[in-house]
Amino acid sequence: MTTSAPSGTEFAATPIPYSAEELAAITYNSDGLVGAIVQDVTDGAVLMFAWMNAESLTKTLKSGRTWFWSRSRQEYWCKGETSGDRQYVRSVRYDCDGDCLLVIVDQEGAGACHTGSRTCFYRAFGGESESAESTGP
Amino acid sequence: MTTSAPSGTEFAATPIPYSAEELAAITYNSDGLVGAIVQDVTDGAVLMFAWMNAESLTKTLKSGRTWFWSRSRQEYWCKGETSGDRQYVRSVRYDCDGDCLLVIVDQEGAGACHTGSRTCFYRAFGGESESAESTGP
Repeated sequence: MTTSAPSGTEFAATPIPYSAEELAAITYNSDGLVGAIVQDVTDGAVLMFAWMNAESLTKTLKSGRTWFWSRSRQEYWCKGETSGDRQYVRSVRYDCDGDCLLVIVDQEGAGACHTGSRTCFYRAFGGESESAESTGP
Repeated sequence: MTTSAPSGTEFAATPIPYSAEELAAITYNSDGLVGAIVQDVTDGAVLMFAWMNAESLTKTLKSGRTWFWSRSRQEYWCKGETSGDRQYVRSVRYDCDGDCLLVIVDQEGAGACHTGSRTCFYRAFGGESESAESTGP
């Protein structure tokens, strides 16, 4: 398995093993969706948040690539299939209530955000820049 | 401001500055809620995911402590007020769509999860232990 590869290195998609018992631990909301936080394996940066349904979760586990459900387009989307900014899954965790996923990935390309930023969370209250910490009032 | 304090150190609650323009960038779902990812400032660990409404977001910014909205109890809750596992906010970020928050905190006490784990995401597909990476099938 390839992790923390230097820029330009090709990542390998590696299926994540799972059991029926683990799948049964996930609870979906009234729209059949569960939230998925995507985190970079190399430094822990939170890259994005999107939604999965049961089918996109199993597609993610089987393919080792992130598959989400688009609520606006009502269709599956595989991250980076258009932009090239693919995500290679290294681990899928789930929380105590089973109603949120934490997907840990190798992020290919410029980043996760459609704006071109590495992370979708590029803005902060108090007008901070991308990686600065709050300095208080 | 106190960050990365050793265990046992008392943290300070520090208000986060914000503008009306920043507040207006946040979009809420049909229940008036926005998802909030909570991340540890010391090492980037994702600790938990919970929901805020507009009022709990401003309470969080003004107080420098995390305030959420409980969907099951239909009430505000300040993290750690009962357990002592308080969260001291260092930064509040928001994503490109404005529909997800990333709250970066100093976590006091044993951790964020009501089970006693440091993080709510203590389980992984493939039966991994808390901090192990997936080793593939």
